[in-house]
Amino acid sequence: MDTYECIRTRRTTRNYLKKDVLDEVIKKILEAGRLAPSAMNLQPWNFVVVKNKETLKKLGSLCPSGRFIADASFAVCVVTDPSNKWHEIDGARAVQNMALCAWNEGIGTCWVGNIEREKVKELLNIPKKLHVLTVLPFGYAVDMGGPRRKVKKRSEEVIPRKRFREK
Amino acid sequence: MDTYECIRTRRTTRNYLKKDVLDEVIKKILEAGRLAPSAMNLQPWNFVVVKNKETLKKLGSLCPSGRFIADASFAVCVVTDPSNKWHEIDGARAVQNMALCAWNEGIGTCWVGNIEREKVKELLNIPKKLHVLTVLPFGYAVDMGGPRRKVKKRSEEVIPRKRFREK
Repeated sequence: MDTYECIRTRRTTRNYLKKDVLDEVIKKILEAGRLAPSAMNLQPWNFVVVKNKETLKKLGSLCPSGRFIADASFAVCVVTDPSNKWHEIDGARAVQNMALCAWNEGIGTCWVGNIEREKVKELLNIPKKLHVLTVLPFGYAVDMGGPRRKVKKRSEEVIPRKRFREK
Repeated sequence: MDTYECIRTRRTTRNYLKKDVLDEVIKKILEAGRLAPSAMNLQPWNFVVVKNKETLKKLGSLCPSGRFIADASFAVCVVTDPSNKWHEIDGARAVQNMALCAWNEGIGTCWVGNIEREKVKELLNIPKKLHVLTVLPFGYAVDMGGPRRKVKKRSEEVIPRKRFREK
């Protein structure tokens, strides 16, 4: 899909079809994350893939805002290194690459941020010194062409013309 | 361009052709930012567009790591709201959308982070309480098909299999 179409039609997705995602597609999504830009090219991230259904259920139970992780085809736990001061910003850039790469394949995701982080680290054997930025559940979107559920601010609100005048 | 191709071929770009970018293309890039996902859909961002050549020169002089802003066709100052605790993460997602949308049009950019922020706020009439996340210079890329200048970590380093074992 054309990149702009992908950006324009992408929707945050919390309902997934019960359909497996091929390993080669998962690999492509991870590759999109790996190729993201980062400050000083430090790439302060690791991507932990979870495909096991039982582990997905456990992950869902550890994410108050992401119970639906349990129903995802797979999930990626995005782990960043807090010793890098841009770790969250760079992690977010990798996440957006993965989200768009997935949508291009008909697969949706959702940034889950409310996480029992220490318990997730324990479950996935993540070193304590690292940070769980987000858990991203992935699965084929039930409705690719659906309307936007949430309203975006109008251009005029986001791109200041009068308020922040260019000198 | 296909989204995955766009992600795969995107390069951080500091050299720009002396070629104007049409307003409709600038608008598309801003639209890509506007449509980015954000925590609780709060969209804690503003995009300040700079097209004036003199202002671009001044901006370049206020960014120690981004002197080349002076030679860009235009720049977008990404302003976020620090009263939102996810403002940097969400701003980064919008930036990645804009960077990919631009690349899809043959236009490159570079996250400039070393900024004399208070002076940039003054120059662009940005309220003091807001945060200048980055200044993004944009311009047609001199070499779209160029090799990657910086090395990416190998998949094995980024996607832990043995180190972070899935339980």
